[in-house]
Amino acid sequence: MLFLFAKQLRYLKFSACKPNSRCLSKSARFKRTITTNMDSNFIFRQFFEKESSTFTYLLADKPSKEAVLIDPVLETVARDLGQIKDLGLILKYAINTHMHADHITGTGKLKEVTSTDADKPCVSVISKVSGAKADEYVSEGSKIQFGPYFLEVRETPGHTNGCVTYVDHQHRMVFTGDALLIRGCGRTDFQEGDPGVLFDMVHSKILSLDSDYLIYPAHDYTGRSVSSVDEEKRLNPRMTKTKEEFVQFMNEMKLDYPKKIDLALPWNKVCGIQELVNL
Amino acid sequence: MLFLFAKQLRYLKFSACKPNSRCLSKSARFKRTITTNMDSNFIFRQFFEKESSTFTYLLADKPSKEAVLIDPVLETVARDLGQIKDLGLILKYAINTHMHADHITGTGKLKEVTSTDADKPCVSVISKVSGAKADEYVSEGSKIQFGPYFLEVRETPGHTNGCVTYVDHQHRMVFTGDALLIRGCGRTDFQEGDPGVLFDMVHSKILSLDSDYLIYPAHDYTGRSVSSVDEEKRLNPRMTKTKEEFVQFMNEMKLDYPKKIDLALPWNKVCGIQELVNL
Repeated sequence: MLFLFAKQLRYLKFSACKPNSRCLSKSARFKRTITTNMDSNFIFRQFFEKESSTFTYLLADKPSKEAVLIDPVLETVARDLGQIKDLGLILKYAINTHMHADHITGTGKLKEVTSTDADKPCVSVISKVSGAKADEYVSEGSKIQFGPYFLEVRETPGHTNGCVTYVDHQHRMVFTGDALLIRGCGRTDFQEGDPGVLFDMVHSKILSLDSDYLIYPAHDYTGRSVSSVDEEKRLNPRMTKTKEEFVQFMNEMKLDYPKKIDLALPWNKVCGIQELVNL
Repeated sequence: MLFLFAKQLRYLKFSACKPNSRCLSKSARFKRTITTNMDSNFIFRQFFEKESSTFTYLLADKPSKEAVLIDPVLETVARDLGQIKDLGLILKYAINTHMHADHITGTGKLKEVTSTDADKPCVSVISKVSGAKADEYVSEGSKIQFGPYFLEVRETPGHTNGCVTYVDHQHRMVFTGDALLIRGCGRTDFQEGDPGVLFDMVHSKILSLDSDYLIYPAHDYTGRSVSSVDEEKRLNPRMTKTKEEFVQFMNEMKLDYPKKIDLALPWNKVCGIQELVNL
Protein backbone atom coordinates (compact mmCIF):
# COMPACT_ATOMS: atom_id res chain seq x y z
CA MET A 1 0.00 0.00 0.00
CA LEU A 2 2.84 2.37 0.79
CA PHE A 3 4.25 1.67 -2.64
CA LEU A 4 0.89 2.45 -4.19
CA PHE A 5 0.40 5.60 -2.18
CA ALA A 6 3.83 6.84 -3.23
CA LYS A 7 3.02 6.12 -6.89
CA GLN A 8 -0.15 8.16 -6.70
CA LEU A 9 1.38 11.09 -4.88
CA ARG A 10 3.84 11.28 -7.73
CA TYR A 11 1.01 12.41 -10.05
CA LEU A 12 -0.70 14.98 -7.84
CA LYS A 13 -0.46 18.41 -9.49
CA PHE A 14 -2.29 21.71 -9.07
CA SER A 15 -3.03 24.67 -11.31
CA ALA A 16 -5.49 27.50 -11.81
CA CYS A 17 -6.93 25.93 -14.95
CA LYS A 18 -10.75 25.82 -14.94
CA PRO A 19 -12.22 22.29 -15.31
CA ASN A 20 -14.04 22.91 -18.58
CA SER A 21 -11.77 25.51 -20.16
CA ARG A 22 -9.94 24.71 -23.42
CA CYS A 23 -6.55 25.01 -21.73
CA LEU A 24 -3.55 24.40 -23.96
CA SER A 25 -0.96 25.88 -21.73
CA LYS A 26 -1.69 25.07 -18.11
CA SER A 27 -1.24 22.03 -15.94
CA ALA A 28 -4.25 20.07 -14.73
CA ARG A 29 -5.61 19.56 -11.25
CA PHE A 30 -5.92 15.87 -10.35
CA LYS A 31 -8.37 14.60 -7.78
CA ARG A 32 -6.91 11.10 -8.19
CA THR A 33 -4.74 9.85 -10.98
CA ILE A 34 -3.47 6.31 -11.32
CA THR A 35 -1.31 4.86 -14.06
CA THR A 36 -2.87 2.29 -16.40
CA ASN A 37 0.03 -0.12 -15.92
CA MET A 38 0.32 0.02 -12.15
CA ASP A 39 0.58 -3.73 -11.79
CA SER A 40 4.18 -3.45 -12.90
CA ASN A 41 4.63 -7.23 -12.82
CA PHE A 42 1.94 -7.82 -15.43
CA ILE A 43 2.73 -7.61 -19.15
CA PHE A 44 0.00 -7.39 -21.77
CA ARG A 45 0.39 -7.04 -25.54
CA GLN A 46 -2.14 -7.16 -28.35
CA PHE A 47 -0.95 -8.22 -31.82
CA PHE A 48 -2.78 -8.08 -35.14
CA GLU A 49 -2.55 -10.29 -38.25
CA LYS A 50 -3.78 -8.27 -41.24
CA GLU A 51 -4.91 -10.98 -43.68
CA SER A 52 -7.37 -12.69 -41.32
CA SER A 53 -7.78 -9.63 -39.03
CA THR A 54 -6.89 -11.88 -36.09
CA PHE A 55 -5.73 -10.63 -32.69
CA THR A 56 -3.11 -12.56 -30.76
CA TYR A 57 -2.66 -11.72 -27.08
CA LEU A 58 0.44 -11.99 -24.94
CA LEU A 59 -0.05 -12.07 -21.17
CA ALA A 60 2.90 -12.55 -18.83
CA ASP A 61 4.26 -12.23 -15.32
CA LYS A 62 7.60 -10.42 -15.19
CA PRO A 63 9.14 -11.99 -12.03
CA SER A 64 8.45 -15.63 -12.98
CA LYS A 65 8.86 -14.85 -16.74
CA GLU A 66 5.87 -17.09 -17.45
CA ALA A 67 4.02 -16.07 -20.62
CA VAL A 68 0.82 -17.15 -22.35
CA LEU A 69 -0.19 -16.56 -25.99
CA ILE A 70 -3.88 -16.58 -26.90
CA ASP A 71 -4.79 -17.41 -30.53
CA PRO A 72 -1.35 -17.27 -32.18
CA VAL A 73 -1.32 -17.27 -36.01
CA LEU A 74 1.12 -19.43 -38.02
CA GLU A 75 2.36 -16.54 -40.18
CA THR A 76 3.21 -14.32 -37.18
CA VAL A 77 4.92 -16.85 -34.89
CA ALA A 78 8.35 -15.24 -35.46
CA ARG A 79 7.02 -11.80 -34.45
CA ASP A 80 5.35 -13.17 -31.32
CA LEU A 81 8.38 -15.20 -30.21
CA GLY A 82 10.60 -12.19 -30.95
CA GLN A 83 8.52 -10.07 -28.59
CA ILE A 84 8.60 -12.81 -25.92
CA LYS A 85 12.40 -12.99 -26.22
CA ASP A 86 12.72 -9.18 -26.18
CA LEU A 87 10.86 -9.07 -22.89
CA GLY A 88 12.95 -11.91 -21.40
CA LEU A 89 9.92 -14.17 -21.04
CA ILE A 90 9.38 -17.93 -21.42
CA LEU A 91 6.33 -19.11 -23.34
CA LYS A 92 4.47 -21.47 -21.00
CA TYR A 93 1.18 -21.94 -22.87
CA ALA A 94 0.04 -21.46 -26.47
CA ILE A 95 -3.74 -21.34 -26.21
CA ASN A 96 -6.61 -21.33 -28.69
CA THR A 97 -10.11 -20.06 -27.97
CA HIS A 98 -11.43 -22.59 -30.52
CA MET A 99 -10.61 -24.46 -33.72
CA HIS A 100 -10.32 -21.53 -36.13
CA ALA A 101 -11.62 -21.73 -39.69
CA ASP A 102 -10.04 -18.54 -41.05
CA HIS A 103 -6.35 -19.03 -40.27
CA ILE A 104 -3.89 -21.74 -39.24
CA THR A 105 -3.01 -21.69 -35.57
CA GLY A 106 0.60 -20.94 -34.60
CA THR A 107 0.62 -23.37 -31.69
CA GLY A 108 2.24 -26.24 -33.58
CA LYS A 109 5.00 -24.02 -34.91
CA LEU A 110 5.49 -22.48 -31.45
CA LYS A 111 5.92 -25.97 -29.96
CA GLU A 112 8.39 -26.89 -32.69
CA VAL A 113 10.49 -23.75 -32.27
CA THR A 114 10.48 -23.76 -28.45
CA SER A 115 11.29 -27.49 -28.32
CA THR A 116 14.94 -26.66 -28.99
CA ASP A 117 15.03 -24.06 -26.20
CA ALA A 118 16.84 -24.66 -22.93
CA ASP A 119 13.46 -24.06 -21.28
CA LYS A 120 10.64 -26.56 -21.65
CA PRO A 121 8.75 -26.30 -24.97
CA CYS A 122 5.46 -24.45 -24.69
CA VAL A 123 2.34 -26.46 -23.99
CA SER A 124 -0.55 -26.20 -26.47
CA VAL A 125 -4.02 -25.82 -24.98
CA ILE A 126 -7.53 -26.01 -26.42
CA SER A 127 -10.93 -27.10 -25.12
CA LYS A 128 -11.66 -30.81 -24.74
CA VAL A 129 -14.88 -30.39 -26.72
CA SER A 130 -13.12 -28.85 -29.75
CA GLY A 131 -11.94 -32.25 -30.97
CA ALA A 132 -8.58 -30.70 -31.88
CA LYS A 133 -5.24 -32.15 -30.81
CA ALA A 134 -3.33 -30.36 -28.02
CA ASP A 135 -1.03 -31.14 -25.10
CA GLU A 136 -3.58 -30.10 -22.49
CA TYR A 137 -7.33 -29.72 -22.62
CA VAL A 138 -9.51 -27.28 -20.72
CA SER A 139 -13.17 -27.23 -19.83
CA GLU A 140 -15.57 -25.10 -17.78
CA GLY A 141 -13.81 -23.84 -14.64
CA SER A 142 -10.26 -24.80 -15.67
CA LYS A 143 -7.61 -22.27 -14.72
CA ILE A 144 -4.54 -21.55 -16.82
CA GLN A 145 -1.87 -20.22 -14.54
CA PHE A 146 1.14 -18.02 -15.32
CA GLY A 147 3.08 -16.67 -12.35
CA PRO A 148 0.54 -15.44 -9.78
CA TYR A 149 -2.09 -14.83 -12.45
CA PHE A 150 -4.58 -17.12 -14.11
CA LEU A 151 -7.16 -17.30 -16.88
CA GLU A 152 -10.50 -18.82 -15.94
CA VAL A 153 -12.04 -20.96 -18.69
CA ARG A 154 -15.71 -20.51 -19.54
CA GLU A 155 -17.26 -22.73 -22.18
CA THR A 156 -19.09 -20.51 -24.70
CA PRO A 157 -20.23 -22.75 -27.58
CA GLY A 158 -22.51 -21.60 -30.41
CA HIS A 159 -19.96 -20.48 -33.01
CA THR A 160 -18.33 -23.91 -32.61
CA ASN A 161 -18.98 -26.58 -29.96
CA GLY A 162 -15.47 -26.15 -28.59
CA CYS A 163 -15.39 -22.36 -28.17
CA VAL A 164 -14.16 -21.13 -24.81
CA THR A 165 -13.73 -17.67 -23.32
CA TYR A 166 -10.74 -16.90 -21.11
CA VAL A 167 -11.31 -14.49 -18.20
CA ASP A 168 -8.54 -12.62 -16.39
CA HIS A 169 -10.35 -11.47 -13.24
CA GLN A 170 -7.27 -9.81 -11.78
CA HIS A 171 -6.98 -7.41 -14.70
CA ARG A 172 -10.68 -7.29 -15.61
CA MET A 173 -10.12 -8.58 -19.15
CA VAL A 174 -12.01 -11.22 -21.10
CA PHE A 175 -10.80 -12.97 -24.27
CA THR A 176 -13.92 -13.98 -26.14
CA GLY A 177 -12.55 -15.59 -29.31
CA ASP A 178 -15.32 -15.59 -31.95
CA ALA A 179 -18.18 -15.99 -29.47
CA LEU A 180 -18.49 -12.23 -28.98
CA LEU A 181 -16.94 -9.66 -31.33
CA ILE A 182 -17.04 -5.85 -31.03
CA ARG A 183 -20.66 -5.00 -31.98
CA GLY A 184 -20.99 -8.47 -33.48
CA CYS A 185 -20.44 -12.19 -32.95
CA GLY A 186 -19.07 -15.24 -34.74
CA ARG A 187 -21.12 -16.86 -37.52
CA THR A 188 -23.22 -19.88 -36.60
CA ASP A 189 -23.78 -21.48 -40.01
CA PHE A 190 -20.98 -24.09 -39.95
CA GLN A 191 -18.74 -26.08 -37.54
CA GLU A 192 -21.69 -27.12 -35.33
CA GLY A 193 -22.83 -23.48 -35.06
CA ASP A 194 -26.03 -22.90 -33.08
CA PRO A 195 -27.38 -19.34 -32.71
CA GLY A 196 -29.66 -20.16 -29.78
CA VAL A 197 -26.78 -21.67 -27.83
CA LEU A 198 -24.46 -18.77 -28.74
CA PHE A 199 -27.01 -16.20 -27.53
CA ASP A 200 -27.45 -17.98 -24.18
CA MET A 201 -23.69 -18.50 -23.67
CA VAL A 202 -22.71 -14.89 -24.48
CA HIS A 203 -25.35 -13.52 -22.11
CA SER A 204 -24.76 -15.98 -19.26
CA LYS A 205 -20.95 -16.33 -19.43
CA ILE A 206 -19.63 -13.01 -20.85
CA LEU A 207 -22.17 -10.19 -20.57
CA SER A 208 -22.87 -11.31 -17.00
CA LEU A 209 -19.41 -10.07 -15.96
CA ASP A 210 -19.08 -6.63 -14.31
CA SER A 211 -19.59 -3.82 -16.84
CA ASP A 212 -16.00 -2.57 -16.60
CA TYR A 213 -14.44 -5.83 -17.86
CA LEU A 214 -12.64 -5.11 -21.13
CA ILE A 215 -13.53 -7.39 -24.03
CA TYR A 216 -10.70 -8.58 -26.30
CA PRO A 217 -12.09 -10.55 -29.25
CA ALA A 218 -10.29 -12.83 -31.74
CA HIS A 219 -11.02 -10.46 -34.64
CA ASP A 220 -12.06 -6.99 -35.64
CA TYR A 221 -12.53 -5.92 -39.23
CA THR A 222 -12.89 -2.15 -38.70
CA GLY A 223 -9.70 -1.26 -36.82
CA ARG A 224 -11.13 -1.32 -33.30
CA SER A 225 -9.07 -3.13 -30.67
CA VAL A 226 -11.16 -3.47 -27.52
CA SER A 227 -14.65 -3.06 -26.10
CA SER A 228 -16.24 -3.53 -22.68
CA VAL A 229 -19.07 -5.55 -21.17
CA ASP A 230 -20.96 -2.28 -20.66
CA GLU A 231 -20.66 -1.33 -24.35
CA GLU A 232 -21.61 -4.71 -25.76
CA LYS A 233 -24.57 -5.03 -23.40
CA ARG A 234 -25.88 -1.62 -24.53
CA LEU A 235 -24.76 -1.50 -28.15
CA ASN A 236 -24.14 -4.90 -29.69
CA PRO A 237 -26.78 -4.90 -32.46
CA ARG A 238 -27.09 -8.69 -32.31
CA MET A 239 -26.95 -9.32 -28.57
CA THR A 240 -29.51 -6.60 -27.81
CA LYS A 241 -32.09 -8.54 -29.85
CA THR A 242 -34.42 -11.04 -28.20
CA LYS A 243 -33.22 -14.64 -28.47
CA GLU A 244 -35.87 -15.35 -31.10
CA GLU A 245 -34.91 -12.28 -33.18
CA PHE A 246 -31.23 -13.21 -32.88
CA VAL A 247 -31.78 -16.81 -34.00
CA GLN A 248 -33.84 -15.66 -36.98
CA PHE A 249 -31.25 -12.98 -37.88
CA MET A 250 -28.35 -15.46 -37.75
CA ASN A 251 -30.25 -18.14 -39.67
CA GLU A 252 -31.13 -15.68 -42.44
CA MET A 253 -27.56 -14.42 -42.93
CA LYS A 254 -26.18 -15.29 -46.34
CA LEU A 255 -22.43 -15.50 -45.73
CA ASP A 256 -19.70 -16.59 -48.13
CA TYR A 257 -18.00 -19.91 -47.50
CA PRO A 258 -14.90 -19.10 -45.36
CA LYS A 259 -11.93 -18.62 -47.71
CA LYS A 260 -9.44 -20.65 -45.71
CA ILE A 261 -11.68 -23.21 -44.00
CA ASP A 262 -10.69 -26.21 -46.14
CA LEU A 263 -7.02 -25.51 -45.46
CA ALA A 264 -7.35 -24.27 -41.87
CA LEU A 265 -9.54 -26.94 -40.28
CA PRO A 266 -7.36 -30.00 -41.02
CA TRP A 267 -4.32 -28.08 -39.75
CA ASN A 268 -6.05 -26.69 -36.68
CA LYS A 269 -7.44 -30.11 -35.81
CA VAL A 270 -3.85 -31.17 -35.24
CA CYS A 271 -2.73 -27.93 -33.60
CA GLY A 272 -1.13 -26.66 -36.82
CA ILE A 273 1.45 -29.44 -37.01
CA GLN A 274 2.14 -30.22 -40.67
CA GLU A 275 3.38 -33.77 -40.11
CA LEU A 276 0.02 -34.76 -38.66
CA VAL A 277 -2.26 -33.17 -41.26
CA ASN A 278 -2.44 -36.19 -43.56
CA LEU A 279 -2.41 -38.95 -40.94
CA MET B 1 -6.98 5.21 -0.75
CA LEU B 2 -9.81 3.27 0.88
CA PHE B 3 -11.36 2.83 -2.56
CA LEU B 4 -8.07 1.51 -3.87
CA PHE B 5 -7.50 -0.80 -0.94
CA ALA B 6 -11.01 -2.23 -1.33
CA LYS B 7 -10.44 -2.80 -5.05
CA GLN B 8 -7.27 -4.73 -4.35
CA LEU B 9 -8.73 -6.84 -1.56
CA ARG B 10 -11.36 -7.91 -4.04
CA TYR B 11 -8.70 -9.85 -5.97
CA LEU B 12 -6.88 -11.57 -3.12
CA LYS B 13 -7.14 -15.34 -3.52
CA PHE B 14 -5.26 -18.31 -2.07
CA SER B 15 -4.57 -21.86 -3.18
CA ALA B 16 -2.09 -24.67 -2.78
CA CYS B 17 -0.79 -24.24 -6.34
CA LYS B 18 3.03 -24.18 -6.53
CA PRO B 19 4.43 -20.97 -8.10
CA ASN B 20 6.13 -22.66 -11.05
CA SER B 21 3.86 -25.63 -11.58
CA ARG B 22 1.87 -25.97 -14.83
CA CYS B 23 -1.44 -25.67 -13.02
CA LEU B 24 -4.51 -25.76 -15.22
CA SER B 25 -7.04 -26.38 -12.53
CA LYS B 26 -6.15 -24.40 -9.45
CA SER B 27 -6.54 -20.80 -8.41
CA ALA B 28 -3.48 -18.58 -8.02
CA ARG B 29 -2.00 -16.95 -4.98
CA PHE B 30 -1.63 -13.18 -5.39
CA LYS B 31 0.91 -11.14 -3.52
CA ARG B 32 -0.61 -7.96 -5.00
CA THR B 33 -2.93 -7.67 -7.95
CA ILE B 34 -4.20 -4.44 -9.43
CA THR B 35 -6.44 -3.98 -12.43
CA THR B 36 -4.95 -2.35 -15.53
CA ASN B 37 -7.83 0.08 -15.78
CA MET B 38 -7.98 1.25 -12.17
CA ASP B 39 -8.29 4.89 -13.12
CA SER B 40 -11.93 4.25 -13.92
CA ASN B 41 -12.43 7.84 -15.09
CA PHE B 42 -9.85 7.50 -17.87
CA ILE B 43 -10.81 6.05 -21.25
CA PHE B 44 -8.19 4.93 -23.76
CA ARG B 45 -8.74 3.32 -27.16
CA GLN B 46 -6.33 2.47 -29.96
CA PHE B 47 -7.69 2.30 -33.51
CA PHE B 48 -6.00 1.02 -36.67
CA GLU B 49 -6.37 2.04 -40.33
CA LYS B 50 -5.25 -0.87 -42.50
CA GLU B 51 -4.25 0.84 -45.77
CA SER B 52 -1.71 3.22 -44.23
CA SER B 53 -1.17 1.11 -41.05
CA THR B 54 -1.96 4.24 -39.02
CA PHE B 55 -2.96 4.23 -35.35
CA THR B 56 -5.53 6.72 -34.09
CA TYR B 57 -5.80 7.18 -30.33
CA LEU B 58 -8.80 8.20 -28.26
CA LEU B 59 -8.16 9.54 -24.77
CA ALA B 60 -11.00 10.82 -22.61
CA ASP B 61 -12.21 11.69 -19.15
CA LYS B 62 -15.54 10.07 -18.27
CA PRO B 63 -16.94 12.62 -15.76
CA SER B 64 -16.31 15.73 -17.92
CA LYS B 65 -16.89 13.73 -21.17
CA GLU B 66 -13.94 15.57 -22.72
CA ALA B 67 -12.22 13.51 -25.44
CA VAL B 68 -9.10 13.93 -27.58
CA LEU B 69 -8.27 12.12 -30.84
CA ILE B 70 -4.62 11.81 -31.87
CA ASP B 71 -3.86 11.34 -35.60
CA PRO B 72 -7.37 10.69 -36.94
CA VAL B 73 -7.55 9.39 -40.54
CA LEU B 74 -10.10 10.76 -43.08
CA GLU B 75 -11.41 7.30 -44.05
CA THR B 76 -12.11 6.24 -40.44
CA VAL B 77 -13.75 9.41 -39.09
CA ALA B 78 -17.18 7.73 -38.92
CA ARG B 79 -15.77 4.84 -36.86
CA ASP B 80 -13.99 7.17 -34.45
CA LEU B 81 -17.00 9.47 -33.99
CA GLY B 82 -19.22 6.41 -33.56
CA GLN B 83 -17.03 5.21 -30.70
CA ILE B 84 -17.00 8.69 -29.13
CA LYS B 85 -20.82 8.78 -29.31
CA ASP B 86 -21.11 5.22 -27.96
CA LEU B 87 -19.09 6.22 -24.90
CA GLY B 88 -21.14 9.40 -24.38
CA LEU B 89 -18.12 11.64 -24.96
CA ILE B 90 -17.63 15.05 -26.59
CA LEU B 91 -14.66 15.47 -28.93
CA LYS B 92 -12.73 18.48 -27.64
CA TYR B 93 -9.52 18.26 -29.67
CA ALA B 94 -8.53 16.57 -32.96
CA ILE B 95 -4.75 16.53 -32.83
CA ASN B 96 -1.99 15.65 -35.27
CA THR B 97 1.54 14.67 -34.32
CA HIS B 98 2.72 16.16 -37.62
CA MET B 99 1.77 16.85 -41.22
CA HIS B 100 1.39 13.27 -42.48
CA ALA B 101 2.56 12.25 -45.95
CA ASP B 102 0.93 8.80 -46.08
CA HIS B 103 -2.72 9.56 -45.35
CA ILE B 104 -5.16 12.47 -45.21
CA THR B 105 -5.89 13.67 -41.70
CA GLY B 106 -9.44 13.32 -40.38
CA THR B 107 -9.35 16.61 -38.47
CA GLY B 108 -11.09 18.68 -41.16
CA LYS B 109 -13.88 16.13 -41.52
CA LEU B 110 -14.21 15.88 -37.73
CA LYS B 111 -14.60 19.68 -37.50
CA GLU B 112 -17.18 19.63 -40.28
CA VAL B 113 -19.26 16.83 -38.72
CA THR B 114 -19.07 18.14 -35.14
CA SER B 115 -19.91 21.71 -36.25
CA THR B 116 -23.58 20.71 -36.43
CA ASP B 117 -23.54 19.21 -32.92
CA ALA B 118 -25.22 20.90 -29.97
CA ASP B 119 -21.75 20.89 -28.39
CA LYS B 120 -18.98 23.10 -29.71
CA PRO B 121 -17.22 21.71 -32.82
CA CYS B 122 -13.91 20.05 -32.06
CA VAL B 123 -10.76 22.15 -32.21
CA SER B 124 -7.99 21.02 -34.57
CA VAL B 125 -4.46 21.16 -33.19
CA ILE B 126 -1.01 20.82 -34.75
CA SER B 127 2.43 22.25 -34.06
CA LYS B 128 3.16 25.85 -35.00
CA VAL B 129 6.29 24.78 -36.86
CA SER B 130 4.41 22.28 -39.10
CA GLY B 131 3.16 25.07 -41.37
CA ALA B 132 -0.22 23.34 -41.55
CA LYS B 133 -3.53 25.10 -40.89
CA ALA B 134 -5.30 24.40 -37.59
CA ASP B 135 -7.49 26.14 -34.99
CA GLU B 136 -4.83 26.02 -32.30
CA TYR B 137 -1.08 25.60 -32.46
CA VAL B 138 1.19 23.94 -29.94
CA SER B 139 4.89 24.17 -29.24
CA GLU B 140 7.40 22.84 -26.68
CA GLY B 141 5.79 22.73 -23.23
CA SER B 142 2.19 23.31 -24.36
CA LYS B 143 -0.39 21.28 -22.51
CA ILE B 144 -3.54 19.90 -24.09
CA GLN B 145 -6.10 19.43 -21.39
CA PHE B 146 -9.13 17.13 -21.25
CA GLY B 147 -10.93 16.89 -17.91
CA PRO B 148 -8.28 16.57 -15.19
CA TYR B 149 -5.76 15.08 -17.60
CA PHE B 150 -3.35 16.66 -20.05
CA LEU B 151 -0.90 15.86 -22.82
CA GLU B 152 2.47 17.60 -22.62
CA VAL B 153 3.85 18.67 -25.99
CA ARG B 154 7.49 17.91 -26.79
CA GLU B 155 8.92 19.11 -30.10
CA THR B 156 10.64 16.14 -31.78
CA PRO B 157 11.65 17.27 -35.31
CA GLY B 158 13.81 15.19 -37.65
CA HIS B 159 11.16 13.28 -39.61
CA THR B 160 9.53 16.64 -40.34
CA ASN B 161 10.27 20.06 -38.79
CA GLY B 162 6.83 20.14 -37.20
CA CYS B 163 6.80 16.72 -35.51
CA VAL B 164 5.72 16.73 -31.88
CA THR B 165 5.37 13.98 -29.29
CA TYR B 166 2.50 14.03 -26.81
CA VAL B 167 3.21 12.75 -23.29
CA ASP B 168 0.53 11.63 -20.83
CA HIS B 169 2.48 11.61 -17.56
CA GLN B 170 -0.52 10.55 -15.50
CA HIS B 171 -0.91 7.30 -17.42
CA ARG B 172 2.74 6.85 -18.38
CA MET B 173 2.01 6.88 -22.13
CA VAL B 174 3.81 8.68 -24.94
CA PHE B 175 2.46 9.26 -28.46
CA THR B 176 5.47 9.55 -30.69
CA GLY B 177 3.96 10.00 -34.16
CA ASP B 178 6.60 9.08 -36.75
CA ALA B 179 9.57 10.27 -34.67
CA LEU B 180 9.93 6.89 -32.95
CA LEU B 181 8.30 3.70 -34.22
CA ILE B 182 8.43 0.23 -32.65
CA ARG B 183 12.02 -0.93 -33.41
CA GLY B 184 12.26 1.82 -36.01
CA CYS B 185 11.71 5.52 -36.75
CA GLY B 186 10.24 7.78 -39.41
CA ARG B 187 12.17 8.32 -42.66
CA THR B 188 14.28 11.46 -42.92
CA ASP B 189 14.67 11.81 -46.68
CA PHE B 190 11.87 14.32 -47.41
CA GLN B 191 9.71 17.01 -45.71
CA GLU B 192 12.75 18.72 -44.12
CA GLY B 193 13.92 15.39 -42.68
CA ASP B 194 17.21 15.49 -40.76
CA PRO B 195 18.59 12.24 -39.24
CA GLY B 196 20.99 14.01 -36.88
CA VAL B 197 18.19 16.12 -35.43
CA LEU B 198 15.86 13.08 -35.20
CA PHE B 199 18.46 11.06 -33.30
CA ASP B 200 19.03 13.88 -30.78
CA MET B 201 15.31 14.56 -30.32
CA VAL B 202 14.32 10.92 -29.82
CA HIS B 203 17.07 10.41 -27.24
CA SER B 204 16.58 13.69 -25.37
CA LYS B 205 12.77 14.00 -25.48
CA ILE B 206 11.42 10.40 -25.63
CA LEU B 207 13.99 7.82 -24.51
CA SER B 208 14.84 10.08 -21.56
CA LEU B 209 11.43 9.29 -20.03
CA ASP B 210 11.21 6.61 -17.29
CA SER B 211 11.63 3.12 -18.74
CA ASP B 212 8.06 2.05 -17.93
CA TYR B 213 6.42 4.69 -20.16
CA LEU B 214 4.47 2.92 -22.91
CA ILE B 215 5.22 4.07 -26.45
CA TYR B 216 2.29 4.43 -28.86
CA PRO B 217 3.54 5.28 -32.37
CA ALA B 218 1.61 6.59 -35.40
CA HIS B 219 2.24 3.37 -37.36
CA ASP B 220 3.25 -0.24 -37.15
CA TYR B 221 3.59 -2.47 -40.19
CA THR B 222 3.99 -5.84 -38.42
CA GLY B 223 0.89 -6.01 -36.22
CA ARG B 224 2.47 -4.78 -32.99
CA SER B 225 0.52 -2.16 -31.05
CA VAL B 226 2.74 -0.78 -28.30
CA SER B 227 6.29 -0.72 -26.97
CA SER B 228 8.02 0.87 -23.99
CA VAL B 229 10.90 3.27 -23.38
CA ASP B 230 12.84 0.35 -21.87
CA GLU B 231 12.39 -1.79 -25.00
CA GLU B 232 13.26 0.91 -27.52
CA LYS B 233 16.32 1.99 -25.51
CA ARG B 234 17.58 -1.61 -25.49
CA LEU B 235 16.33 -2.95 -28.78
CA ASN B 236 15.59 -0.26 -31.37
CA PRO B 237 18.12 -1.24 -34.08
CA ARG B 238 18.40 2.39 -35.24
CA MET B 239 18.41 4.24 -31.94
CA THR B 240 21.02 1.93 -30.41
CA LYS B 241 23.50 3.05 -33.10
CA THR B 242 25.88 5.94 -32.49
CA LYS B 243 24.64 9.23 -33.92
CA GLU B 244 27.18 8.96 -36.73
CA GLU B 245 26.15 5.41 -37.61
CA PHE B 246 22.47 6.40 -37.49
CA VAL B 247 22.95 9.41 -39.79
CA GLN B 248 24.90 7.29 -42.28
CA PHE B 249 22.29 4.50 -42.12
CA MET B 250 19.37 6.88 -42.70
CA ASN B 251 21.18 8.73 -45.50
CA GLU B 252 21.96 5.47 -47.29
CA MET B 253 18.37 4.15 -47.19
CA LYS B 254 16.84 3.81 -50.63
CA LEU B 255 13.13 4.26 -49.97
CA ASP B 256 10.30 4.48 -52.49
CA TYR B 257 8.59 7.83 -52.96
CA PRO B 258 5.61 7.81 -50.53
CA LYS B 259 2.54 6.60 -52.45
CA LYS B 260 0.11 9.20 -51.16
CA ILE B 261 2.41 12.16 -50.52
CA ASP B 262 1.30 14.27 -53.51
CA LEU B 263 -2.32 13.86 -52.47
CA ALA B 264 -1.85 13.92 -48.69
CA LEU B 265 0.39 16.94 -48.19
CA PRO B 266 -1.83 19.59 -49.86
CA TRP B 267 -4.80 18.25 -47.87
CA ASN B 268 -2.95 17.99 -44.58
CA LYS B 269 -1.55 21.48 -44.99
CA VAL B 270 -5.12 22.69 -44.66
CA CYS B 271 -6.14 20.21 -41.96
CA GLY B 272 -7.86 17.93 -44.49
CA ILE B 273 -10.47 20.50 -45.50
CA GLN B 274 -11.33 19.98 -49.18
CA GLU B 275 -12.58 23.53 -49.80
CA LEU B 276 -9.15 24.91 -48.93
CA VAL B 277 -6.99 22.52 -50.92
CA ASN B 278 -6.90 24.59 -54.10
CA LEU B 279 -6.81 28.06 -52.54
